[in-house]
Amino acid sequence: MEKQVLLYEGKAKKIYSTEDPRVVWIQYKDAATAFNGEKKADIKGKGRLNNEISSLLFSLLEERGIPTHFLEKKSATEQTVQHVTIIPLEVVVRNVVAGSLAKRTGFEEGHELSRPIVEFYYKNDALGDPLFNEDHIEAMKLAKEQELLEMRALALMVNSVLLPYFAEKKVRLIDFKLEFGRNEEGALLLADEVSPDTCRLWDEQTNEKLDKDVFRRDLGELTDAYETILTRLGGALHV
Amino acid sequence: MEKQVLLYEGKAKKIYSTEDPRVVWIQYKDAATAFNGEKKADIKGKGRLNNEISSLLFSLLEERGIPTHFLEKKSATEQTVQHVTIIPLEVVVRNVVAGSLAKRTGFEEGHELSRPIVEFYYKNDALGDPLFNEDHIEAMKLAKEQELLEMRALALMVNSVLLPYFAEKKVRLIDFKLEFGRNEEGALLLADEVSPDTCRLWDEQTNEKLDKDVFRRDLGELTDAYETILTRLGGALHV
Ligand SMILES: Nc1ncnc2c1ncn2[C@@H]1O[C@H](COP(=O)(O)OP(=O)(O)O)[C@@H](O)[C@H]1O
Ligand SMILES: Nc1ncnc2c1ncn2[C@@H]1O[C@H](COP(=O)(O)OP(=O)(O)O)[C@@H](O)[C@H]1O
Ligand SMILES: [Mg+2]
Ligand SMILES: [Mg+2]
Repeated sequence: MEKQVLLYEGKAKKIYSTEDPRVVWIQYKDAATAFNGEKKADIKGKGRLNNEISSLLFSLLEERGIPTHFLEKKSATEQTVQHVTIIPLEVVVRNVVAGSLAKRTGFEEGHELSRPIVEFYYKNDALGDPLFNEDHIEAMKLAKEQELLEMRALALMVNSVLLPYFAEKKVRLIDFKLEFGRNEEGALLLADEVSPDTCRLWDEQTNEKLDKDVFRRDLGELTDAYETILTRLGGALHV
Repeated sequence: MEKQVLLYEGKAKKIYSTEDPRVVWIQYKDAATAFNGEKKADIKGKGRLNNEISSLLFSLLEERGIPTHFLEKKSATEQTVQHVTIIPLEVVVRNVVAGSLAKRTGFEEGHELSRPIVEFYYKNDALGDPLFNEDHIEAMKLAKEQELLEMRALALMVNSVLLPYFAEKKVRLIDFKLEFGRNEEGALLLADEVSPDTCRLWDEQTNEKLDKDVFRRDLGELTDAYETILTRLGGALHV
């Protein structure tokens, strides 16, 4: 399999075609962005860390029966995945209050929820990724009621796998964002990435942030935090 | 029945006790506020118009089988209602895109929805009345799943009554906000007010705004717009 033409460049990844129309080649970039692209930086080594961590977590989720787009890690910063049509929704699962949920509800950051909260945001940079309810999603024809139920169930399954997995590694899974898409056969697959860019991960002992909030809030070296996560997950150390 | 002590003063109404603990006395004020209280004005005659229109619409809704708090119009600006414990949610029903829904979705103001959208906002001025989904509502213990279903069903029933009623009067019901509460016996009742302060109402021919947007957007004399609504609904003309 060969990487061919650049199909799309996002904020964190480049997507290339391959000779197989059902497969695309993802290259993770050394770029960090936050606040809808307002804050930006080049961060050497970030692409490799996210590619390693995402490959590792997608493999775990596949093993546990969750259908994902992941096919194969191709290099330190690249992987092949099934090409999907992305459903333009960011599906967020939260176990602990943080970020916008603290602002929305008035709960303190760190407040433990008695059960997970699932949220759907419209993936639209121009509108600032607004929160949607099911009526908004159906009115905009982004997904049908049945698809919403499926995405919600899959998102909660992902949480049920990742929460104890991270806990074993002494990491608290605070919240995470998923994207779903449909492949050529119409199957709903977990797509995009699962990495410290898309999860909030806090050290179990100290609550030290080991995720993109380190960049958003200027808390230190982002790659140190991501390296800590990769090491705890048993991934290869940087050489 | 007598008006006794002031229990609560809100932005648009004063609530007094009566000798019957199950009954409160509402006095509509000559005050307009918008943008979470940032814009304010005294508007002579507004209290009367909202009291007349709200009394009229609550009577209609009661007739059509919707349980409401409304008891009796007591004066030009006053009415008695059943005392309820307000559920701190603003239940919004939308037939046509306007206001924050245009901003949220990118739909043009005026876009006709193929079916109504129902939204729940957390009634909390300090937080700016944020949009909530059902998980937020349950996490904050504001209402149970069953209550949400009940409020949603009642809100859609109100829409089914008001939409053709206003249409007969050559008025388009664009959207409206409801509040619900429980009385001493635990019955869920439609409470608060239903008026041009809480509905978007556009003239059928010209789409002229006949509601609080006249104040929010400085489109003319607010009381002229409300007087037009009261007249079309067959209410008493100002003397
Ligand atoms: N399997 C896939 N097939 C097609 N597109 C995908 C797949 N996985 C992720 N994408 C999309 O690739 C794009 C690039 O990723 P990213 O750089 O994270 O973009 P963004 O700037 O939108 O966050 C995103 O629009 C994402 O939804
Ligand atoms: N039947 C009722 N029993 C008790 N409180 C009510 C009833 N109907 C409305 N209310 C409450 O009366 C308060 C005063 O109304 P208003 O001036 O509109 O307040 P706000 O500034 O919160 O919009 C509101 O908090 C409203 O929820
Ligand atoms: Mg992305
Ligand atoms: Mg009010």
